Amino acid sequence: MELKNDLLLRTARGEQVERPPVWLMRQAGRILPQYRALRGRLSGFKELVETPDLAAEVTIQPVDELGVDAAIIFSDILVIPEAMGLPYEMVEKKGPRFPDVIQSKTDVARLISGEDAADALIYVYDAIELTKRELQGRVPLIGFAGAPWTIFSYMVEGQGSKTFSKAKKMLYAEPELSRELLDKITDTTIAYLQRKVAAGADLIQVFDSWAGILSPDQYRSFAIPCLQRIAAAIEAVPVTVFSKGAWFALEDLAGLDCQTIGLDWNITPKEARSRVGDDLVLQGNLDPCQLYASPEQVVKATRQMLNAFGRRHIANLGHGVYPDTPLDGVRAFVNTVQAHRYPDIG
Amino acid sequence: MELKNDLLLRTARGEQVERPPVWLMRQAGRILPQYRALRGRLSGFKELVETPDLAAEVTIQPVDELGVDAAIIFSDILVIPEAMGLPYEMVEKKGPRFPDVIQSKTDVARLISGEDAADALIYVYDAIELTKRELQGRVPLIGFAGAPWTIFSYMVEGQGSKTFSKAKKMLYAEPELSRELLDKITDTTIAYLQRKVAAGADLIQVFDSWAGILSPDQYRSFAIPCLQRIAAAIEAVPVTVFSKGAWFALEDLAGLDCQTIGLDWNITPKEARSRVGDDLVLQGNLDPCQLYASPEQVVKATRQMLNAFGRRHIANLGHGVYPDTPLDGVRAFVNTVQAHRYPDIG
Repeated sequence: MELKNDLLLRTARGEQVERPPVWLMRQAGRILPQYRALRGRLSGFKELVETPDLAAEVTIQPVDELGVDAAIIFSDILVIPEAMGLPYEMVEKKGPRFPDVIQSKTDVARLISGEDAADALIYVYDAIELTKRELQGRVPLIGFAGAPWTIFSYMVEGQGSKTFSKAKKMLYAEPELSRELLDKITDTTIAYLQRKVAAGADLIQVFDSWAGILSPDQYRSFAIPCLQRIAAAIEAVPVTVFSKGAWFALEDLAGLDCQTIGLDWNITPKEARSRVGDDLVLQGNLDPCQLYASPEQVVKATRQMLNAFGRRHIANLGHGVYPDTPLDGVRAFVNTVQAHRYPDIG
Repeated sequence: MELKNDLLLRTARGEQVERPPVWLMRQAGRILPQYRALRGRLSGFKELVETPDLAAEVTIQPVDELGVDAAIIFSDILVIPEAMGLPYEMVEKKGPRFPDVIQSKTDVARLISGEDAADALIYVYDAIELTKRELQGRVPLIGFAGAPWTIFSYMVEGQGSKTFSKAKKMLYAEPELSRELLDKITDTTIAYLQRKVAAGADLIQVFDSWAGILSPDQYRSFAIPCLQRIAAAIEAVPVTVFSKGAWFALEDLAGLDCQTIGLDWNITPKEARSRVGDDLVLQGNLDPCQLYASPEQVVKATRQMLNAFGRRHIANLGHGVYPDTPLDGVRAFVNTVQAHRYPDIG
């Protein structure tokens, strides 16, 4: 079905557009009362992830409620380790926990990977197909995955961490084993994302949430090659890479076969542009906490951000929207972007 | 008493030295068996902080065991909010918790500040005096405080946080109240640090642990003015400012009346130097996880770091040493720095 609003895709392909498209990371989630109502009736987070018609429902909620220019499939980056043979639990208010973690060569050898692992995630592809049907071409649908380094971190650490020192220890102490594990994750991620595209995803975003805890050398050595394999393998749709905290790797990221680079709020649009060069599209980067301010202040800060980025920009926050963000702030952000027009369009 | 090893101070003052001095953030702590033994006999962390002869004992342990070029007084940045009227508990394996937090103008008005608050921390000044006596001039003693923004974060948030969104919300939603609170913290920190210097601290380090969660604009607007007031107020000894994660503020930090800038491991020495300019001394910045590697690899990485920094450098990690770091790795780091000689010294 043809898209009625394809602004995101035209922007990601580098076309001349009238204004930036806007969506929010984690827009399908706790900021919306309809999400909280549905979530309250379920046994847990994973039921929502694993049930295609529920995932489709919450994916579309922000399109209805906020009028954003894109939907992003409701899912979790941790479905990948689970499909590889490392199941996880989502502990309420604490986050994910893996009863088993990767510690040895034997653990890595035992993992399922590539197409075999991707086969376990039929419920995600079903959710995408269902969402595409129900969206009826209103906006593009974004599919996503965690970047291999971030998935590696969880598989070794077993849970969130301030330092991810176990995961980083493996990189330093067992670089070859680390590469083997990263390769298996990358193979799986490629198979998974290709299936997502086949199911109808219009753009792919790769989230490297823990990029910022690596040194520039380690990020270049371990993370960038995986990202490049993924970016090169996804040919049919645009790819966005968001390496949170990895300002130091922007020059490397700019060399990937991707179309868009996501930015957190720690970097000015000007500095990001100078590091990335003129070709790629930039996505971001309002501080999510800015939306706690009064709507008037949100409008002002959003306009300032739009002017600082100029063209080749997808408006978003610099991180997922925080669950307690007032909807007034979110609306002020979305509406300000949508009212914006680039100056030199006739 | 005259210092037998004043390498740290000569370096911080910008003098020509034969090699970089070396110490580790959190060197007085769980990496040392003698610390763990002493700590195991105590009721809790705060007993150690509040008992001068115990604090002095653990402060000197790494000088004895590792031969580092400086001692840093064993204490906690959170003694400041406590002295201001906001007591905290240190919850084992979880971190600090404040039963009361700052939410309103009334809460801010009620706080003790400046000299009155600093008067409550006699046990810290006593610990410094005692440590100085017991060190007998072997190495300089570093005194420290949290930066006002980091202390503010804890006082508003009440505990550690991944996002510190409550603290940041206050900056966005109530900027005037935020400045009032930051000013009170700054007044207290200045009084406290001046008392530390009077008690014998040879160098002051200010830790802005949560610098990296602010945007460049917010850091410039809220955090830098407090740091400047502190740096300007400490005249008798050199001052190091370590704003973790605030690579984007290095140009601003370079404008402070301080002598040394601390760096985390996310930035290359070359980029840091180009942002800071030639005058200031840089401190850091080996990834603490590097010490998990084999001693041979630690030696190699340390040499690489020393060569990348060149002169005007105090060798350290880019963050506090992690508690489970093998002592072999720590020793390889310290010994490699101490064996280093700058090439052009006759």
